[in-house]
Order: sequence, then structure tokens, then C-alpha cells
Amino acid sequence: MGEGVEWALHCCVDLALGGAGRAVPAARLAAYHDLPPVYFNKQLQALARAGIVVSVPGPRGGFRLARPPEQITFMDVVVAIEGPDPAFRCAEIRRRGPGAGDPAADPGPCLIDEAMRGAELAWRSALAARTVADIAGAVRERAPDVPERIRGWLAASRT
Amino acid sequence: MGEGVEWALHCCVDLALGGAGRAVPAARLAAYHDLPPVYFNKQLQALARAGIVVSVPGPRGGFRLARPPEQITFMDVVVAIEGPDPAFRCAEIRRRGPGAGDPAADPGPCLIDEAMRGAELAWRSALAARTVADIAGAVRERAPDVPERIRGWLAASRT
Repeated sequence: MGEGVEWALHCCVDLALGGAGRAVPAARLAAYHDLPPVYFNKQLQALARAGIVVSVPGPRGGFRLARPPEQITFMDVVVAIEGPDPAFRCAEIRRRGPGAGDPAADPGPCLIDEAMRGAELAWRSALAARTVADIAGAVRERAPDVPERIRGWLAASRT
Repeated sequence: MGEGVEWALHCCVDLALGGAGRAVPAARLAAYHDLPPVYFNKQLQALARAGIVVSVPGPRGGFRLARPPEQITFMDVVVAIEGPDPAFRCAEIRRRGPGAGDPAADPGPCLIDEAMRGAELAWRSALAARTVADIAGAVRERAPDVPERIRGWLAASRT
């Protein structure tokens, strides 16, 4: 998994905590965590394509969350950045070579693939159960000054 | 995840079903699913380093399972082939740039990293709960002729 997932998740939490529903320039978002602006912009575009953020054009434009942080799960963000493909892809090697034999001998789905997909489902379910709002809420509780600091930084670009 | 995981899992199941506790040449194991022998041999070496198979040297040598298939989990095989690193690696970007602020402001562990590690744990737990013996047993039940066919193929190399 690329570093873009960490960037995108922090970005969504930053917008939830300090975006105040207004567009923040990509460069300002990148600078908050000292991220390379061009590469980070690619992640923002991916989030926009997935409908997680909205790209607002123009000199006062930028990015804002497309929906309430309660409705943005970790799974949404991971799929936006990494794509929808499962980590394990069955190539059905059991159907190749002498091991393939008579297809009628073992007509069912590959049991190895089933087990791997079951594990991936557990991973996806755990990610789908956590939202950007969960993280933002926990930050507000344990570090009450952080949201104000993020808000100040993100808003400074609008003066 | 590379294709080596699928190869290694099928290989372990093949050995469990048809290896009869004796060493099978790598080339014979590869040919059963029409796999490229040199690259497949790398996966076998990785399984040997992880203590999942034993490499038996000599003209009648090859590979056999190092322990009962009940004691070989999917997690063991995935770690042997892919390494122990988690899919998500937190680079602590929250500690970089103006977002880092006063470390005292948010001294706890990164909540995003915690959520990602929780999901990975769910994945690993699911993989650790499935063994090579589970798959071998299910194959024996639903396709009773398959084990005999594998046994015949793997044993042919010993004549």
C-alpha cells in the first residue's frame, strides 16, 4: 500500500476538523504535513474522482469534503487511492497443467481463493466500520487545541 | 500481493494431499500446475526458510512439508512469501510541517495508524484461522478422486 493512503486519510481528517466546509487550496493542505505538493495533488484528484472531496475551481478554489465525515469510511479512502482490486488475485492455477485434470472432478470454486477472499472481507469490513468522523471526534477529545490550530492554518490561505 | 502466494498455498495443499511425507522434486511440484520452475523454486526456498517445508538434498531429494498441515496456517504461508511487514506503514506525517505543532498537544499514538492496524489484524486473524489441513480436508470431501491423482503425479518422479 502506498504512502498516499496515509496522506489522504490525514487530509480528510484535517478538512473535517478545520475545513469549515470551505475549499482549501491543495498546496495549503500539502504544506500542513510538509507533503510534496505535486504528488499530493494526485491523491486529491483521486479523492475527487471517488466523490470524497469536491474540487472547487478558481483563484479562491481548492478542495472541501464532498459529504459529512460520518459518511466517509476508511474503506472509501483506501479504495479511492489504491483502487478496488483485492490484494489477492486468484489466477486459477489449479486449472493448469496435469493438476487441472477433469474439470468435473473438482467443479466448485477454489477453496484457497475463498479463504483469501474471506480474510480480505474481514479487512474491508473493519475499514468500512471506521469513519473520518470517528478520528476527528477522538482528536477533539484528547487534544482540544488541535482543531483550532488546523482551522487557523487552513483559513490563513483565504485572507 | 504477488502470484507466489497462490502458488505456495496450492503447493502446500498438494503436498498435504499427495506428498505422503516424502520429498518431491521442485520441478515436479511446479509442473503439476504448469508453473515456471525457476521462479517457483524461489517460493519453495522462501517456504523452507520459514520452516514450512523441508528441503531434502540429493538426487532423490526435493521438498516435503516440515510439519503436519494442521499446523500450517494461511498466515504462515503469506508471511513466508510476502514478508512480515504490514500493508499499511505509518510514516507519522502528522509530526511533520506546521501540523506537527507542539508534540504535547497530541501525544498519543496516531489514531489513523491504529485504525489501519486494527483492520490488518482482522485480516491476519482470518488467515491464521485457516490451515492447509482445512483445505486438504475439504478437497477430500468434495472431490475424492483428486488426492489420488495428486499422489500419483507426485510419486511418479520417484520411480
